[in-house]
Amino acid sequence: MNIFNKINTNAASSSNTGFGTNASSYGGRFINKDGTANIKKRGMPFFSRISWYHTLLNLPRWKFISLLFIFFASINFVFAGLYYLIGIEYLDGIDPSGSAWLKFSKAYFFSAQTFTTVGYGHISPSGILTSALAAGEALTGLLSFAIATGLFYGRFSRPKAFIKFSDNALIAPYKGMTAFMVRMAPYKNTNLIDANSRMTLGMSIEENGAMVNKFYTLKLEMYEINSLSLSWTLVHPIDEDSPFYGFNDADFATIEGEVILYLKAFDDLFSSSVAVSTSYTFEEIFYGGKFEMMYTESEDNTRTILHLDKINSFKKVALN
Amino acid sequence: MNIFNKINTNAASSSNTGFGTNASSYGGRFINKDGTANIKKRGMPFFSRISWYHTLLNLPRWKFISLLFIFFASINFVFAGLYYLIGIEYLDGIDPSGSAWLKFSKAYFFSAQTFTTVGYGHISPSGILTSALAAGEALTGLLSFAIATGLFYGRFSRPKAFIKFSDNALIAPYKGMTAFMVRMAPYKNTNLIDANSRMTLGMSIEENGAMVNKFYTLKLEMYEINSLSLSWTLVHPIDEDSPFYGFNDADFATIEGEVILYLKAFDDLFSSSVAVSTSYTFEEIFYGGKFEMMYTESEDNTRTILHLDKINSFKKVALN
Amino acid sequence: MNIFNKINTNAASSSNTGFGTNASSYGGRFINKDGTANIKKRGMPFFSRISWYHTLLNLPRWKFISLLFIFFASINFVFAGLYYLIGIEYLDGIDPSGSAWLKFSKAYFFSAQTFTTVGYGHISPSGILTSALAAGEALTGLLSFAIATGLFYGRFSRPKAFIKFSDNALIAPYKGMTAFMVRMAPYKNTNLIDANSRMTLGMSIEENGAMVNKFYTLKLEMYEINSLSLSWTLVHPIDEDSPFYGFNDADFATIEGEVILYLKAFDDLFSSSVAVSTSYTFEEIFYGGKFEMMYTESEDNTRTILHLDKINSFKKVALN
Amino acid sequence: MNIFNKINTNAASSSNTGFGTNASSYGGRFINKDGTANIKKRGMPFFSRISWYHTLLNLPRWKFISLLFIFFASINFVFAGLYYLIGIEYLDGIDPSGSAWLKFSKAYFFSAQTFTTVGYGHISPSGILTSALAAGEALTGLLSFAIATGLFYGRFSRPKAFIKFSDNALIAPYKGMTAFMVRMAPYKNTNLIDANSRMTLGMSIEENGAMVNKFYTLKLEMYEINSLSLSWTLVHPIDEDSPFYGFNDADFATIEGEVILYLKAFDDLFSSSVAVSTSYTFEEIFYGGKFEMMYTESEDNTRTILHLDKINSFKKVALN
Repeated sequence: MNIFNKINTNAASSSNTGFGTNASSYGGRFINKDGTANIKKRGMPFFSRISWYHTLLNLPRWKFISLLFIFFASINFVFAGLYYLIGIEYLDGIDPSGSAWLKFSKAYFFSAQTFTTVGYGHISPSGILTSALAAGEALTGLLSFAIATGLFYGRFSRPKAFIKFSDNALIAPYKGMTAFMVRMAPYKNTNLIDANSRMTLGMSIEENGAMVNKFYTLKLEMYEINSLSLSWTLVHPIDEDSPFYGFNDADFATIEGEVILYLKAFDDLFSSSVAVSTSYTFEEIFYGGKFEMMYTESEDNTRTILHLDKINSFKKVALN
Repeated sequence: MNIFNKINTNAASSSNTGFGTNASSYGGRFINKDGTANIKKRGMPFFSRISWYHTLLNLPRWKFISLLFIFFASINFVFAGLYYLIGIEYLDGIDPSGSAWLKFSKAYFFSAQTFTTVGYGHISPSGILTSALAAGEALTGLLSFAIATGLFYGRFSRPKAFIKFSDNALIAPYKGMTAFMVRMAPYKNTNLIDANSRMTLGMSIEENGAMVNKFYTLKLEMYEINSLSLSWTLVHPIDEDSPFYGFNDADFATIEGEVILYLKAFDDLFSSSVAVSTSYTFEEIFYGGKFEMMYTESEDNTRTILHLDKINSFKKVALN
Repeated sequence: MNIFNKINTNAASSSNTGFGTNASSYGGRFINKDGTANIKKRGMPFFSRISWYHTLLNLPRWKFISLLFIFFASINFVFAGLYYLIGIEYLDGIDPSGSAWLKFSKAYFFSAQTFTTVGYGHISPSGILTSALAAGEALTGLLSFAIATGLFYGRFSRPKAFIKFSDNALIAPYKGMTAFMVRMAPYKNTNLIDANSRMTLGMSIEENGAMVNKFYTLKLEMYEINSLSLSWTLVHPIDEDSPFYGFNDADFATIEGEVILYLKAFDDLFSSSVAVSTSYTFEEIFYGGKFEMMYTESEDNTRTILHLDKINSFKKVALN
Repeated sequence: MNIFNKINTNAASSSNTGFGTNASSYGGRFINKDGTANIKKRGMPFFSRISWYHTLLNLPRWKFISLLFIFFASINFVFAGLYYLIGIEYLDGIDPSGSAWLKFSKAYFFSAQTFTTVGYGHISPSGILTSALAAGEALTGLLSFAIATGLFYGRFSRPKAFIKFSDNALIAPYKGMTAFMVRMAPYKNTNLIDANSRMTLGMSIEENGAMVNKFYTLKLEMYEINSLSLSWTLVHPIDEDSPFYGFNDADFATIEGEVILYLKAFDDLFSSSVAVSTSYTFEEIFYGGKFEMMYTESEDNTRTILHLDKINSFKKVALN
């Protein structure tokens, strides 16, 4: 089947997507579901390629906390080893007649008490070397907590757009024709204003014998709203200028393509712009559906209820 | 009474408000007085719907401080219980012959001294288990203070627009016709520049037998100012293009509607954009009033005084 | 003298300055030299009118540090008093037979050791009340340092435009006519890009028998530059559309007016927009001057030297 | 050779670069490779010209850590000296019969234990003066760690554009003519969207007998892309409106000029705009080259691989 012939020649292609056009160098989707680019970087050492701050900010909470505890346990192991090597007799309060294991464990807890600056003092350093090491450990401990403080703050103060997207995009009836629709809703107690969206279609097609990536801007019926507090359905009318013009159920099933979606808004509380993106492959497009309303009036008629569990609920409709 | 007939057909309706158009699914006002959306979210677990950082940042100061003290008291209770369970004999310095209550209270204060890393040392841990628990508690304490540091900083460094709005909107005489007016003033020692405003009217009206929400942009005589250091009166002239054109005193009393106001400005000190919003229902509109000047020259003629207590003061005027 | 007649009627007045037009309610200049509005707020309690975070961020460094030390000294005084009241016998390690003054001083230093969580332990609390107070003090101490950490960070991470303005504005010869000129230069090792400026003239003039504030936008020959790393001279050509058109030396000496200047730029290091403003009253305008070049080539021809001490240097020139 | 005659008279010059036009006052390049301005500031005291926060944020990591350790070692030296001067007999726990060196070293470690608030307590202060000094030191220590916490956070939370630029710019064949090309690629696990670029050419040329700096905007075939996750080649087509029109290999070798490049993008994770710049002197322009593709499909066909080590790889091509 020649996919290219299916694409509406009226549709204006878009060149400033930032994706490459050489389809044969491309693998998989352009954008992952979570909005990250589906790209692996190579050719530089791992640690130069990684922003450890970004990485630590993106770690799940339990992994991050575990990492801190593991780091704490390990660094005390190192310091305890050093105290032990210098000589346990320089740690006043540790009985030198105990077993090696007991003495090490006491050095270990002395290290923990120094690193956290608790410093009970029932064990205390003596001798230049042990005292200097303890001073250095206390400094290291405080600087480590300075870093941990920064990471904690960075993790929870990081502006994020708490937006849920519908799992599927729909081809739905719309004003006597059809439209491509995606639904989103904010799911946390934040306040987003001045939201704007952008949709791009990407497809690998044959052109002059070579596979190239072609991109099309999908015009939205409304791409900007003043406040994003209810659900928002993005609507791309499939009119004569749409690249989808003339596509039927079978086309969406057989052609490979991907719709990429960007959203930017201003978060009232963070006083910062936030951005989020996602994408829908053609397999994630449902042909012939209509989103069901996801908000209702509250029982006492004083508020509107947004039902987040209905974000994916749609009913099937026949498209002519 | 058919409200719809009262609305000026010249007025251009606005569709990108982000509010839904299905009036029968809507309850109460669109935007609360404090600018938050009048929407309740459902259908997701409470903790997924809540950004605890946003929540802790919005807590009143005394609640936030109380929460910290309660957390401190509780977590020490937990740790004291653990020390007690392991055995009070592993806490050197506690007389094992005391009453259970006395021993627990000493374990409690040992816990507090460990959690805060004071570590006087008149009580100190011995034995692997108690020592390890104390090390873990010191770490937990420091991480808790790391989080508290972040929260404190987040709370007071959060950019906010310290703007007071007049309680009422006025229908006031204006250049031979009337205008819808709202007044605002900055009330703190901050410096706002490049302020811009936007006003939207929302009403539930009958259209083709169904109740729908209709929105209209209210054009402002001046929507942008260079610096917001004095009071600013937003003026929407009720001319032939205004949806209010032809409304009289009785109309504002009987029709249900709401004027939504957005303000964005750049805060000089935070070097950040700040946004604030509020709304006026028709009940909060006073028909026939005129704001009284709220600034005067200082007695020594060298400064201008802004009287914040006069933000609501207006005098009644007859409108023909 | 009728000032109004001197003002060029071709000059377009500007209404969106945010300053009031009622000149009789106005005292002194519009904007202070340091860019803050010359406005005093009244009619609300002092603490509601003050953002203490803004205030502490704007304190000179030595005042801020002194405040921290005074706070530390005072709060220890309060806690020492409480320990003393509960009874010095509950502080193990203090000789109860000493003088009242000695005992109080020891309670004071115990308090300091608790507040800072040093907790040497040669003095330690006993008894429920004193132990609980010490635990509370340690918590208070840590939270105070959490706040101090936030304030320190807030103070030095606050994006600022380090810009020096020339003390005087000049009326200088320019392309066969004259121009109003102001010079600025960045004076720190920061990198400002995308700088843009705006100039407004404000004057109190008589109109229809009443004194009103009139504002005019002063068009700049160039209001935007890509990078602000050298000095930048803002040039308002006094052409037929300028409100200054026809002004002579004597007019600037007798008429009261003020030129307000806003600058916004993007700071590369803070990754943030920064804004700064200042103003020049007519007394600060020098009629007939020409700024002297303030940059030269370095001796080894590899760099350009910006001479910050020359920002005010100009030579007098005769204007016809 | 008269360079000026070589420059295309159709090319529109650009005046808002922020660089000076007086070429004889200029030394070396306009912008350094790392994007900083090639300007040295003079005429103000060193400490007024330096933003120490900016400076500490730009220090290499090992220098910053070393600085902290050196500061810690030094300040303890100062405090130890003070304790020693007041009298070692006021430090309980230090044997006054030891050597001066031994006593000083113990005072030193007592200082370190106080500064870090470890406070083991085997040495403790007595006497008003020593106790007060120790309290002051503990406060100083905590405030120092407050500052260190801020600096650490400032260092790693600072939004940065992790962009690698190709070492050389190329004059490459392009659509039947030639184009000036530069390549860039993001090299870390960050997500940049809405990237836009700007190119300016700067040259010192003779005009009316004087050397002046002339600047030209280089029009880009595409100056804005939606997402910067792959490599991006900036293309300035050398058409009839380009200042490079008619330049040949020899011209680039003999004329002195510099192409300055600005990039701004929005970082998804920092939720902040980031900016970066660099420049290419004519010596860094390679005449007759073509960048080789730097991305390929992954072996399992599910991802695209970006080869960062290929950013500079190009093949030579003959230009007619």
